[in-house]
This record gives sequence, C-alpha cells and structure tokens, in this order.
Amino acid sequence: MSDFTAYNIIASKKNKKELSFEEIKWFVESCVSGKVHKYQLSALLMAIYLNGMTTEETAHLTKVMLDSGEKLKFSGAHYVDKHSTGGIGDKASFILGPIAAACGVKVPMIAGRGLGHTGGTIDKVESIEGFKTAINSKKFKELLKKNDFVLSAQTKKIAPADGLIYSIRDVTATIESIPLITASIMSKKLAEGANGIVMDIKTGSGSFMKTPKRATELAKSILGTAKQFNKSAAALLTDMSQPLGNKVGNSLEILESVQTLKGEGPKDLTDLSVELAAYMVLLAKKAKTVKEARVKCRDAIKSGKAYEIFRKVVKSQGGKLASLDNLKVAKKETIVKAKSNGYLSSFKNAEIGLRLVDLGGGRKVTGQKIDHSVGFDFHKKIGDKIKKGEPILTIYHHAKQNPLVKKIVKDFQEDIISISKSKVQKPKLISKVLKI
Amino acid sequence: MSDFTAYNIIASKKNKKELSFEEIKWFVESCVSGKVHKYQLSALLMAIYLNGMTTEETAHLTKVMLDSGEKLKFSGAHYVDKHSTGGIGDKASFILGPIAAACGVKVPMIAGRGLGHTGGTIDKVESIEGFKTAINSKKFKELLKKNDFVLSAQTKKIAPADGLIYSIRDVTATIESIPLITASIMSKKLAEGANGIVMDIKTGSGSFMKTPKRATELAKSILGTAKQFNKSAAALLTDMSQPLGNKVGNSLEILESVQTLKGEGPKDLTDLSVELAAYMVLLAKKAKTVKEARVKCRDAIKSGKAYEIFRKVVKSQGGKLASLDNLKVAKKETIVKAKSNGYLSSFKNAEIGLRLVDLGGGRKVTGQKIDHSVGFDFHKKIGDKIKKGEPILTIYHHAKQNPLVKKIVKDFQEDIISISKSKVQKPKLISKVLKI
Repeated sequence: MSDFTAYNIIASKKNKKELSFEEIKWFVESCVSGKVHKYQLSALLMAIYLNGMTTEETAHLTKVMLDSGEKLKFSGAHYVDKHSTGGIGDKASFILGPIAAACGVKVPMIAGRGLGHTGGTIDKVESIEGFKTAINSKKFKELLKKNDFVLSAQTKKIAPADGLIYSIRDVTATIESIPLITASIMSKKLAEGANGIVMDIKTGSGSFMKTPKRATELAKSILGTAKQFNKSAAALLTDMSQPLGNKVGNSLEILESVQTLKGEGPKDLTDLSVELAAYMVLLAKKAKTVKEARVKCRDAIKSGKAYEIFRKVVKSQGGKLASLDNLKVAKKETIVKAKSNGYLSSFKNAEIGLRLVDLGGGRKVTGQKIDHSVGFDFHKKIGDKIKKGEPILTIYHHAKQNPLVKKIVKDFQEDIISISKSKVQKPKLISKVLKI
Repeated sequence: MSDFTAYNIIASKKNKKELSFEEIKWFVESCVSGKVHKYQLSALLMAIYLNGMTTEETAHLTKVMLDSGEKLKFSGAHYVDKHSTGGIGDKASFILGPIAAACGVKVPMIAGRGLGHTGGTIDKVESIEGFKTAINSKKFKELLKKNDFVLSAQTKKIAPADGLIYSIRDVTATIESIPLITASIMSKKLAEGANGIVMDIKTGSGSFMKTPKRATELAKSILGTAKQFNKSAAALLTDMSQPLGNKVGNSLEILESVQTLKGEGPKDLTDLSVELAAYMVLLAKKAKTVKEARVKCRDAIKSGKAYEIFRKVVKSQGGKLASLDNLKVAKKETIVKAKSNGYLSSFKNAEIGLRLVDLGGGRKVTGQKIDHSVGFDFHKKIGDKIKKGEPILTIYHHAKQNPLVKKIVKDFQEDIISISKSKVQKPKLISKVLKI
C-alpha cells in the first residue's frame, strides 16, 4: 500500500516542490486506472505548466509514460530516428529515412496522423496506393532488418498514458509546456527502441515554438531527457516561417519527396533532409564528423541508393511501385497571382494548413477521411522579388470546389501571403544545432 | 451565441490576463450546466490559485456565484451579519447574534455544518432539543422580523455554483486561494441580504490562514469585494492559537454560550463576542463609535436582554427551552493531567478537532450523524503556569469509549499540548481591525 494521494502530489507541485519518481509513477498509473480523476490530472498539469519541472522530473514522467505501453528494444548505436515538431510541407522523413538507411543507419520510425493545421506523415505516405502502416512489432522488426528503414503508424499500445494526458492538455490550455512536450515526444520515441534521436525543432509562424528562445529551451529539455536515458541525441532549430519545399498536400508532398530522392528536389528541402540525415549518420557512428556524414548523405542521393531503398520500403510495406510515378493529384489548377510588385515577406503558415483542411486535404476531427489529391504548389519563397500578376502558387483542387477556391485565392492574396515594398532577407534554414 | 470557449478562458488566466465579467459568467454557468468539463474547471482553478485574481475579478466571480442561486434582499444598514473563517471552540455566533439584536441590529444568519476538524454552527445549535434550522425564505423573513436574529442552515439553493467549485477545490489542492476563498464566503453571505458584514478572520495553528500576513490579505480581499457590492464591512484578525473559550464539543459549546450570555462566560469568549457584536452595531449605525457600541453590547449582557433574545429565538425555531438548562453532556469524565511543571506554550488545534471527530462529536464524511454529548473542557490557557499532575482538561465521553480515551489522553499529553520550561506570553486576542 502506498501512502500517496492525488491531493498531496498536486499540492507539492503547486508549492514548487520536486516530485519523486514514485509520486509521478503513482499519479500517472492511478490516472490510467481511473483511481485519480481527470479533474485532478488537469489540476496537476496546470501546476506543472505554471511551475515547471526539473530535468529529473521530466525524465521520470517520460519513463512512466513509456512504461505504460509496448516497447521495442534494439542493440547498437546505429538505431537512430528523427522527430520533427511539425510544420507545413514537412516531408523530410520520406527523404532522410532512406538517405540514413543508405549510409548504414537503422531507422525505426513510428509516426502519427494529422489533425488541425498540421499534416501527418502517415496520411502523406498513404497517398501511395496500398502502402500499409498498421504493422505489429514482429513485422516491424522484420522490415527494419530487411530494409533498414520502416515507417509505421503509432498505435494505442505505445505510451497510452501519453494519449490520456494529451487529451486533457488539449482542452485545458496546457499543451505548450516544455516538460510536458518533452515527455510526450520522448516517451513515444523511446518506445521505438532507437538509441539515437535527431530532433527537428521548427521555429516561426507555423510552428509550435514561436520564438528561438522557446525552441532552444525545448531542445535542451529533450537533450537532457535523452541523456537521462543514455541515448545520443542532436537537436536542430530550423526555419518554419514558410512551407518546407514547394508542395503542400498529401500526394503532392510524396511527389516532391520522390523528386528530392532523385536529386531534383527544391534546395531547402534537400538541404534540410541531408543535414538531419547527416546527424543521424553521426549519432549512428557511421561517420566521424558531420562534414563526412554530409558527403555520404549527398552521395546516397547522387548514387540513387536512397531512392532505391525508398522503393524497397514502398514495395515491402504493400505499396504499388507503379503508383509512385502516377500519384493522384487533383485535376483542376487555379493560379494565385501577386496583387502588387515587391518582395515576398511572410507566410501565415498555420492558415495554409487550415486552407488545406478546407479543401479536404486534412482533418478537423480525429478519424475523418481525407482527400490525398488536393494541395498547393508554391512558386515563390520569402525574399523573392515579385511582379504584380506573377504566379505565386498553384492550387490543386476539384472543379466542384470552384467557389471555395475563389475564397481561398483571396485569402492567400489578402491575408496569408504578404508582399513588402522593401527588400526582404531570406530566412536562415538552420539557426542552431545542439548535441549531446 | 457567445464566442467564449473554456480553452481560451483557461489560457487567459494561465497567461495572467484579467478575466472579464462575461468570461467568468460564461465559464461558471457552463460548469453548472455541464457544458464545461470538471477537468477544465480544475485547470482554471489551479491557474487562479497560482496567478491570482484582481479585486474586480474576485467581485465578478462572487456575483456570478451569488446569482447562481436564491437571494434575499433587505433594505437598511441595520441588516448586519458576521462570518468566521472557523476555529476550535468558536461559538461566538450564539452570543454575538443575540447581543447585536438586543442593540437594534437585524441579524440574518445562515451557517453550515462541520466537516473534518472544524465544527459547524448548525451542528452545535442542534444540541438544543427540537431546534430547527431548515427554514424556507418566507419563514426566514418572518423570524427575522419577529426576533431580530435568525439562524438557518445553508441549503443547496444558496450559491450552488460555489458548491460545485468547492467540491473540486477540495480535491485539487486549490482551497487556500485568497480570491477563491473570498468569492466562496461572499457569495453565500451576500445571498443572505445583509448590508453589513463583520468578518472574524482567525490566525494561528487551528485556522485557515496560518500567518498574520495571509490573514490580512484575506481581510483586504473580502473588504474590497464588499465595497464592490456597496456593503459596509469590517474584518477582525483574531487569535486561534488555542480553543476559543474553554469548551469544545456541541452541547458543551451551547452550554458555554448560555453561560456567556448570562455574563458568566470565559473572558476571551466574552470579549471577542462583544467586540464582534460592537462592530456589527457600528456598521448598523446603531452607535457612533466602537467604544459606544461596546458599552451597548456589554449592557445587553448585563441587562439580560441578549439572553432573553436567545431564548426567544430558541423557542421560535422549535427548540425546547427546558433543554437549555439540561443539555446532554456525556456522563463519563476523564481528566488529562500535566506531565511536567512549566507554562502552557501551545495547542495543536486541528488535532483537537480531529480527536473530537474520533469521539463522534464531528464528522469524517458529509451526512454522517454526530454525537452532541461528547467533548472537552479546557482548564488552562496558553501562558498559564502549570504544575505536574494538575488537570489541564476534562474529556466528556461514554464509558464504552475508555480505550479510545486512553489514547486521546496520551495524544494530549505528548503531542497536542506543549508545556515549556520558560515563561510564555499570552496571545493577543485581537491583533488587527480593518474597516471600510
């Protein structure tokens, strides 16, 4: 019998005391079993939000959430995965996974679906006809052994305590808490069994961490937690002031990923994918320096080896290879033209995601079906010189959506994209790298 | 249709923004209707606990909670009530009510039952055979008109939103929040229709507000809220480092109240009752100065007028007058003797309350029946010189409780009461008075 009570644990955190592993374990397990009420959980979460948690407490919470579900375990430094805090047009997983695998890294990737303005890796990959992401742990291990890269959908068996806690955070304004974000990300990543983790932490208008300061805090918190679990880790702070690459929308993003794997992708997407893959190669000890890793990663594209692995993964996971050259993109194209001369100065990224949801390319509520074919293709980036009447982006949609698209065109011209009279500097793609 | 969401309101308070009346009204009403979940309410309460509320917000919350239930309204400054934050042996209501009434004040008093270590005014008065406290508002007004003092039990019709909020605070460690305490007290007091309120704010080991600083903060918050409602108010910070008067336990406290009304009560209880009543008289404009009010109050005891009113109230509310001289006190008496020479230095008041609960004189859970006859009679106060073997208190109990009482005697000797070798100063009964 433990002497713990929900009341005393809430009171401790409220009074800025550090919680012990046993206290956190008892509280979370009692929430899962229903012994502690959701209104006590939400009170604790708000106290954590406002009073914070130490690195040790964050690691305890991560461990307890991790232990609430299924766990995989792999031996060796070369099992490395990447996690991104998410952003518009972020399809880097499809590119860096095969690149890293081509360089000798084992990439056990478990990803989620999209909700609200953020798209999901699993939704995107399902644009490939037949591609299966519901994989049990036996099959997961087999595929990883065979292909070096496996992409699976998250199940409720992984860190179920995180599912419960997240559902409460989501409706009590306690999402943006560094320790809670850290424990949520790390409990799921650690369940995959990877021994190295590369974090892509986005900053800017379309991201979770609005400021570089907050992004750095999150990076440090994640690295600190990784250290407590004896994992190697690196965190890259990367730009999310504009979509990554040019294409946004499920099929369009797979299309662009294939282009990039073939060496024909946009510069920002290629550079970021190579850089993240390079850190994976470094953590996997398949290169001595980042510079060396970078060269290996570029070579994996040039040689066609990365694309070959991608095709092998598609085939092994049930996807039709023929569909790769024939991805379903909506037939109707509407071009959004610039309304003035100047320089492209900003994107409202979250709004871009929401317009995609309006077109059916994302979901408003969990479980909703999505239309993989719709999306946007951007022709301009921040800093580009713009002439009035010049195409800024193309909207891919269905003919019956014409009235909606008319509104979306207006939104892009008047609200989402800004054009400045004076010259605008291009944003730096990678602003900071932290490593342990 | 309002645009408010629970999420946004929680987020505002979390970000230290001031909530508007409309936001607080929407949130509380949505909690009562079940539209907002309890886990959202508890998140907001924790955010309020940690980030506080302005005087305006506190008044808004008070108003919303007040408006959630039945309200009485009386015209005239002479409708004045008292509220105490509660303490061991606090039976001042039974004494100051009749005193104030004897001086021309109308006292519409609604009180609660005890739970845990604190006793309840309603439980105590029910020691008088037949005394009824379940009174509807029509009868309440009639009795107030006839007797000038009426004592009624709180019903669920008064400030039901407070009931809901309190039940969540109670299990989420958010009780000791000055704005939440203020709104809880004031919503109930304002529902009585009194136009002046005298607050008895206890400080010390057996009280809600452990330090004089916190007690002063609560006093200021309550006076600030009273001002927002155009009520006159005074707050007295009074000592709760030891039981008030000598007797603790339901029948015993009524017995001591009668003694005090007859002018034969202990000094501290008499002085405090007179002082609180004097401020009621002052707020009621039945005296020009506290000094004048004090003289009137003392006279009300001396002349027998206060006791006469008390008897009238007892009779009107169904109580048997004969039982006043024959209150049921448990037959078996056990004396707790001092184990050493010295000076009485401290009481653990909350423990005294809990030992009364052990004897059956209080309740552990809502709704539990209580034994009015058991209790304690203290023969010594803090600062008194003590001789080893001298009686410190008498325990009134039933013969069958002998083993339990043996343990309680030991608790008193070894834990609850401390005796110091060096001289101890007597605590000051009233440390501060604030008034608007």
